[in-house]
Amino acid sequence: MSATRMQLLSPRGVRLLSRGRNELLAVSGGVQPGGPRVRSLTSPPLSSSSPGRALSSLSATRRGLPLEKMSENGVASRAKVLTIDTMNPTVKKVEYAVRGPIVQRAVELEKELAEGMKKPFTEVIKANIGDAHAMGQQPITFFRQVLALCSYPELLNDNTFPEDAKSRARCILQSCGGNSMGSYSASQGIPSVRQDVARYVERRDGGVPCDPDNIYLTTGASDGIVTMLKLLVCGEDETRTGVMISIPQYPLYSAALAELGAVQINYYLNEEKCWSLDISELQRALDEARRHCNPRALCIINPGNPTGQVQSRQCIEDVIRFAAKERLFLMADEVYQDNVYADGCQFHSFKKVLYEMGPEYSNTVELASFHSTSKCYMGECGFRGGYMEIINMDEEVKAQLTKLVSVRLCPPVPGQALMDLVVNPPQPGEPSYNNFIKERTATLSVLAEKATLTEQILNTVPGISCNPVQGAMYSFPSITIPEKAIKEATEKGQQPDMFYCMKMLEETGICLVPGSGFGQRDGSYHFRMTILPPTDKLKILLNKVKEFHQNFTQQYS
Amino acid sequence: MSATRMQLLSPRGVRLLSRGRNELLAVSGGVQPGGPRVRSLTSPPLSSSSPGRALSSLSATRRGLPLEKMSENGVASRAKVLTIDTMNPTVKKVEYAVRGPIVQRAVELEKELAEGMKKPFTEVIKANIGDAHAMGQQPITFFRQVLALCSYPELLNDNTFPEDAKSRARCILQSCGGNSMGSYSASQGIPSVRQDVARYVERRDGGVPCDPDNIYLTTGASDGIVTMLKLLVCGEDETRTGVMISIPQYPLYSAALAELGAVQINYYLNEEKCWSLDISELQRALDEARRHCNPRALCIINPGNPTGQVQSRQCIEDVIRFAAKERLFLMADEVYQDNVYADGCQFHSFKKVLYEMGPEYSNTVELASFHSTSKCYMGECGFRGGYMEIINMDEEVKAQLTKLVSVRLCPPVPGQALMDLVVNPPQPGEPSYNNFIKERTATLSVLAEKATLTEQILNTVPGISCNPVQGAMYSFPSITIPEKAIKEATEKGQQPDMFYCMKMLEETGICLVPGSGFGQRDGSYHFRMTILPPTDKLKILLNKVKEFHQNFTQQYS
Repeated sequence: MSATRMQLLSPRGVRLLSRGRNELLAVSGGVQPGGPRVRSLTSPPLSSSSPGRALSSLSATRRGLPLEKMSENGVASRAKVLTIDTMNPTVKKVEYAVRGPIVQRAVELEKELAEGMKKPFTEVIKANIGDAHAMGQQPITFFRQVLALCSYPELLNDNTFPEDAKSRARCILQSCGGNSMGSYSASQGIPSVRQDVARYVERRDGGVPCDPDNIYLTTGASDGIVTMLKLLVCGEDETRTGVMISIPQYPLYSAALAELGAVQINYYLNEEKCWSLDISELQRALDEARRHCNPRALCIINPGNPTGQVQSRQCIEDVIRFAAKERLFLMADEVYQDNVYADGCQFHSFKKVLYEMGPEYSNTVELASFHSTSKCYMGECGFRGGYMEIINMDEEVKAQLTKLVSVRLCPPVPGQALMDLVVNPPQPGEPSYNNFIKERTATLSVLAEKATLTEQILNTVPGISCNPVQGAMYSFPSITIPEKAIKEATEKGQQPDMFYCMKMLEETGICLVPGSGFGQRDGSYHFRMTILPPTDKLKILLNKVKEFHQNFTQQYS
Repeated sequence: MSATRMQLLSPRGVRLLSRGRNELLAVSGGVQPGGPRVRSLTSPPLSSSSPGRALSSLSATRRGLPLEKMSENGVASRAKVLTIDTMNPTVKKVEYAVRGPIVQRAVELEKELAEGMKKPFTEVIKANIGDAHAMGQQPITFFRQVLALCSYPELLNDNTFPEDAKSRARCILQSCGGNSMGSYSASQGIPSVRQDVARYVERRDGGVPCDPDNIYLTTGASDGIVTMLKLLVCGEDETRTGVMISIPQYPLYSAALAELGAVQINYYLNEEKCWSLDISELQRALDEARRHCNPRALCIINPGNPTGQVQSRQCIEDVIRFAAKERLFLMADEVYQDNVYADGCQFHSFKKVLYEMGPEYSNTVELASFHSTSKCYMGECGFRGGYMEIINMDEEVKAQLTKLVSVRLCPPVPGQALMDLVVNPPQPGEPSYNNFIKERTATLSVLAEKATLTEQILNTVPGISCNPVQGAMYSFPSITIPEKAIKEATEKGQQPDMFYCMKMLEETGICLVPGSGFGQRDGSYHFRMTILPPTDKLKILLNKVKEFHQNFTQQYS
């Protein structure tokens, strides 16, 4: 019996595919009453003009027989080679809520508005994704000047560009083959950029040494995370690699683990304690997982996405001790390292804490830390820049990592250039310094304001409860959904919070992501919203959410 | 028995890892006499300070037991979580010769030269990779002007930029969220860029319709190819997906297939007939493969890499007929579509031929075609721009594809902008048109000259035989290696052509890639060299190759 066949017939863990645009593309868990229908293995492919023949052809192909023996009237009646039944089943298991059906519907609504269709709103506000520039955040002038100079070096003769921008551009271009960003770089990244990253990490971590050879530039942080998971995942059945991820999580992790066929080990963050991480919960999750897989890695997102918590130094130390004791490879997603807003909170890198714990830990615990150009005050998502630092990695594995990344040739060079500017921004005394500080400070203080504003307004709504947004770019409030609404959602084959968010979108034009896309404790419901819209628009958005929630609660009470 | 363990112990298909820098990172096939040693499963990890304990700990971990029960003196003696023995075995099977050990040695030699070390040459010339700008090719001015404008829109007020560049930049920015290249785009790519791609494909193919919904922008062509393979590969053992690739091939294909665990089905190009493709050879390869796997896809590179042939219209038609008859998904790697030099040769897209063959084929044969900003006259590798067009893909599979690409958020936006310019360059009457045509023509005629030059000079060398470089950017001459040299290489555990190329690098500073990295008929030897160095340098290079080959032949005769 083939894997595909098994997956479709298995009574447990069946993945259902629906075609309705308002429904989830794939539903975790069992059959939902009234939900999307299961495609029968014996149903003919949609595109076939001769169902009976197509079916026997399909079976023939599965047995590896050439088709022409089955077919009399030639190719026209052929079933497709690649169908939902014959495609890679692990890809079907992948889900990514941040760009899921609700966002597809939001795009449709925008089109409908543009075509003059009447709606109860005049604008779709997308608060589903941490896409700062799309929400009006301005890029850092210096960064863009240098990128323009690197793109079109004729501009180096233009006197309107500041000298420090020109000198940075010259440095970057000198590190590029033929002085062009159009050349491939080394697969690990441009050496001078990796050196600048290393110096940045050393400054950030109060002098803890950083070896540029441990830095790998990446295509956004996602690329680095997936690459590291690729190295780690192996084994079959009860020796299959398990990877611990927080719930709620950023769905890149669950998507990558599904694609790699790894076992996802959920540990739950403590919503009552401001989404903090309890070691006892890590232990519980690990002990349970050890019964059926081989747990090898522990992923942490700090500051948290979607939950916005900032981990204390003590917590990080405890996590490192736990990873050491339990022999887990640590993956620290630290892309929001500059996004810390709450009083008394501070970003501590896993690497710094690891080194402060002494050689017993700093010489042994394996750690990969990820950073990106997409978040913090930069918000340069479109350039797909990022890096990872690997600590205590086995030298032979490192050679394999270097080989693996070489297959994709190199991360985008403009993204590498941007990463270089982020880790090596204008310095005191340089002509662009004051303006850089002004722009950075302005962006970060507005974000801090919006973090407080979001928490405050949401907490005025009965039935919505929101933890402080200590850092990152999101709030993840819990919402009370009335029983009647849960029933209606279930009848529609939707998660109750998907039902809630879809209704909000249709009625208000506000696009949020349901908590079920990130994971949450059974019976609890949430949504993730970014704090990125401009303050005025954010206020409107929050008040519309308030009004919607009140109406929704009334309607279903 | 775990997969890792099996892989290490299996007498067939063992992959050997060597640590010597002059040796292959991974060797295909069986044990080479005197070659790199096999790491014993019972040998302790290198980094352990307590081998015996580390070993028992490792076994404990494999059984899923927590380590601390095994260890008395704590973490310091811990073996690593991730070692060459416990990492993902499919990653170990990946090879990528274009950036393999010979290139690593070339980089070292450059460093040694820079440090003043004495060598028999003053410069390393890298002809290993199709990296045009690194070899001095100049970017198209118009493209870079628009990219600078998009990076730093303040420049839209600068009167030195031509109006058409400004208007293109405005269009691109208007399609970006918040008018910034720093925003994420739609995962499938910016809609207006996909529309421009569709119009380009229609023009290229003489009016054959192209639906923008079938266009997916990618991070270089490699990204698209790997994504398509990911959808296709499934099954276990004799139902495992097989994918047909040409030999010689571009090693992205073998690397991706190894990583996905697919079966690589080799079909050999006919070197005697100018590397053309014989349908009888496709049939032979397919029939053999059907005995042990489920062949589902056929990959074609046209114009050819590394072999430089341009397929005739008739050949493409025959291939399509074959794919239809045998029910194979066609993947057409057409990134060199503008790189055609030889008289009588012309680029025919698979899609155009498919449509000309009538609805029996055009409505049924599933095809993905790949293009990129990295080759042709642009050579903009560093921007990682590309697209794929999918034809006749099942609608449900397409929804899965769209979902899959959303996990990585989006291809780099500067690369998308560049792809847009490639498919929508300056038009007659626009201010930049004449200069654009001048630059494009100059680049392509120099490439044509160098294609001829390469073939001619190489064919003057006894023991080297080079087919005409009809297209693309490489020559792949066959070389005669004396028996004595083959013996010495074998004793060193090296492929004879790796031995040859490594010796050439050490003696002349010329960096080529051995044919074994691309695949070749047993007992034949080749190297791949790009035709990209500037004409003067290319002449020097070719004459050095000539001299080296003569000396090498003499030395080993």
